[in-house]
Amino acid sequence: MTKQGPRDVRMRGFDRRATVEQALAWLDAAVGELGAEHVSLDAAAGRILAETVNSPVDVPGFDRAMMDGFAVIAADTHGASIYNRLTLRVVGEVLPGRTFEGPVKSGQAVRIMTGAPVPEGTDAVLPAEQVDIDGVSVHVVDPVPQRKHIGPQGEDLRAGDRLLVRGRRLRPQDVGLLSSVGRGEVAVVRRPMVRIVVTGDELLPRGTAPQGSRIVDANGPMLEALVARDGGVVINPGIVPDTPEAIAAAMAEPVDVILVSGGSSVGQEDHAPGLLATLGELAIHGVAMRPSSPAGMGRIGDRLVFLLPGNPVSCLCAYDFFAGRAIRGRGGRDPSWPYRSRVLPLRRKLVSAVGRVDYARVVILDGGVEPIAVSGASLLSSTTQADGFVIVAADSEGFGPGETVDVMCYDR
Amino acid sequence: MTKQGPRDVRMRGFDRRATVEQALAWLDAAVGELGAEHVSLDAAAGRILAETVNSPVDVPGFDRAMMDGFAVIAADTHGASIYNRLTLRVVGEVLPGRTFEGPVKSGQAVRIMTGAPVPEGTDAVLPAEQVDIDGVSVHVVDPVPQRKHIGPQGEDLRAGDRLLVRGRRLRPQDVGLLSSVGRGEVAVVRRPMVRIVVTGDELLPRGTAPQGSRIVDANGPMLEALVARDGGVVINPGIVPDTPEAIAAAMAEPVDVILVSGGSSVGQEDHAPGLLATLGELAIHGVAMRPSSPAGMGRIGDRLVFLLPGNPVSCLCAYDFFAGRAIRGRGGRDPSWPYRSRVLPLRRKLVSAVGRVDYARVVILDGGVEPIAVSGASLLSSTTQADGFVIVAADSEGFGPGETVDVMCYDR
Repeated sequence: MTKQGPRDVRMRGFDRRATVEQALAWLDAAVGELGAEHVSLDAAAGRILAETVNSPVDVPGFDRAMMDGFAVIAADTHGASIYNRLTLRVVGEVLPGRTFEGPVKSGQAVRIMTGAPVPEGTDAVLPAEQVDIDGVSVHVVDPVPQRKHIGPQGEDLRAGDRLLVRGRRLRPQDVGLLSSVGRGEVAVVRRPMVRIVVTGDELLPRGTAPQGSRIVDANGPMLEALVARDGGVVINPGIVPDTPEAIAAAMAEPVDVILVSGGSSVGQEDHAPGLLATLGELAIHGVAMRPSSPAGMGRIGDRLVFLLPGNPVSCLCAYDFFAGRAIRGRGGRDPSWPYRSRVLPLRRKLVSAVGRVDYARVVILDGGVEPIAVSGASLLSSTTQADGFVIVAADSEGFGPGETVDVMCYDR
Repeated sequence: MTKQGPRDVRMRGFDRRATVEQALAWLDAAVGELGAEHVSLDAAAGRILAETVNSPVDVPGFDRAMMDGFAVIAADTHGASIYNRLTLRVVGEVLPGRTFEGPVKSGQAVRIMTGAPVPEGTDAVLPAEQVDIDGVSVHVVDPVPQRKHIGPQGEDLRAGDRLLVRGRRLRPQDVGLLSSVGRGEVAVVRRPMVRIVVTGDELLPRGTAPQGSRIVDANGPMLEALVARDGGVVINPGIVPDTPEAIAAAMAEPVDVILVSGGSSVGQEDHAPGLLATLGELAIHGVAMRPSSPAGMGRIGDRLVFLLPGNPVSCLCAYDFFAGRAIRGRGGRDPSWPYRSRVLPLRRKLVSAVGRVDYARVVILDGGVEPIAVSGASLLSSTTQADGFVIVAADSEGFGPGETVDVMCYDR
């Protein structure tokens, strides 16, 4: 790496910025879903299924009572009425999880609880409400048809039934279902390991007060939260010195995604783009968007590398547009925007320059959208005051009052 | 606890079921937000802020360069043009995080990088693109106004500015902002400790295959995932024996919310309602809804106790209606439904009985809603096949084809 003076800045510049579409096209072609790993059910919710699961068993695995009452032979109850009470002898009881020993014979009944297996020989359940009990006998006043109040084996699922399809994001009830068929673990897409490389000699670590000319790292904590939201495993051992050696060492770590915050542009202290070009491929450097035009991306072997501007708003924007999409995609998730979208009318005009995509922070007020007036990209508070953002396409000059826009809401 | 026979089942029943509205009214009055705890920024995203945070500092804490270039005295550039190139002597350099020593005098310039503090004595930044450099001199061809390309101290935030208001769910950028003002930890609402008490002697623990008349616990894994989703801390040491002693011991644990799965009804093995009435208050037992009419709730001291039917679909439904709401509320979150709602037309009629609230599982097909035909409440697969559910009010007989309904989508 040779140091470059201000003249070089002017000379190199970003004359050939990529469009957002070009950057996304490269990205989507480069993002490959990671392989599978097995996790226990305790850790399965929210993960992406990497196998299609068929039921190995019938559920339930036996005929079961659907009511508290008496398991009987239906034929024994034929002809019963309040004028013709038929009496059955109670020969035992069966609770859920237990089995009644031996076949039940004509004239007999077995007390049964909901969920218990129906004893051999019986073929109906008389609800407790429909009989009178007298010591060891029940008196039947209504006939009961065969199979009544019996949930048959395999009623919910038969062995071989398809339960859940590969690619599904596991819901709480899916985890319950997997447990019920005896699965203790399941194959899911591996979570991307994401190395966060925050550079900037002016940065102090989180938890310290800003001092003199030094500012406190905002991007590290923010990126960690974003990566965790998007299903990545965060690796961030701390601020990396602004030297090519330190940054190159961080880029060499065996991870799935590398996020470099700071030093992404073309100035003399911007080591990351040159390193990426040297160590792998700098596919995109400079994007026609605002903020975060100095963003870049590429790869080193299987590692996707994102160059995020050090400026916190630009960092968030470049993460949202590119890095988050890649992390979600590699982890098997839906790569599209993770925000809830709302179509709402503008209260004031939203101006944008033709030729670049804008990430315009907005507030929602009385059901209308107000752009936040900000002079630059540096005001992280503009993203905490904002309810969300509007993406203005490169060929648009913006929108007038009353026009509807699509707001991506930060509260998801 | 005295054992009760089938006659008692019929006699006691649920003749006086509460309405869903009554249950929710009791619940909302009983749910109190928990106290605060301090967490480090690493653990703050997604948590609910328990303090209002004002900035302790100006951000930035100094006047900073907004471009790479040269810090100059603006008056030195007056009159500059391509016909009148003015020359300034470069006396040094200042990088971000550094400070230029000593005041800059007329005729001098300091090379400066974006983000670096503007040296004492200078009052403007000349972008690198606008000058020619010649050894240790820069040649100015355009005058620069005072304050140009300088981000003034306090531009983003002034000490005392309100940053984030109590009750806010912290977003990634909020965490970045907190870090930038020097906050290393923050007060958030404590997460509810939720004891899951799965009862049922017929149950086998997760990770085993169903055997004979015994079934595998589905509710424990499902409830754990639901509680985690809703911000609770899961405590579930394993299946609890179906004895009053074991259940009472679990109910005595020092937690914030207790979820009892199974034994919630009025049968002889249903210990939980009587225990809750004895140890505390059984406020609601039996709710006019389907499924999960045997649900109940109450409290023991500060602990909210939910009696969830053992049947997995009923368990999910009762959790969704009541327990999840309480867990979100105690943790300071929005207590309302955590699902994304979509208004869509029905493709077939959705029938419901007047007098009870229905939790009808549906699939979304070609933009229309199809109720899932299920005979009973026991089919957990109906909730994994479903895209969501429709709540049918107690006074409704349901809806006809073409009528629009509000679908709560399980995929959130």
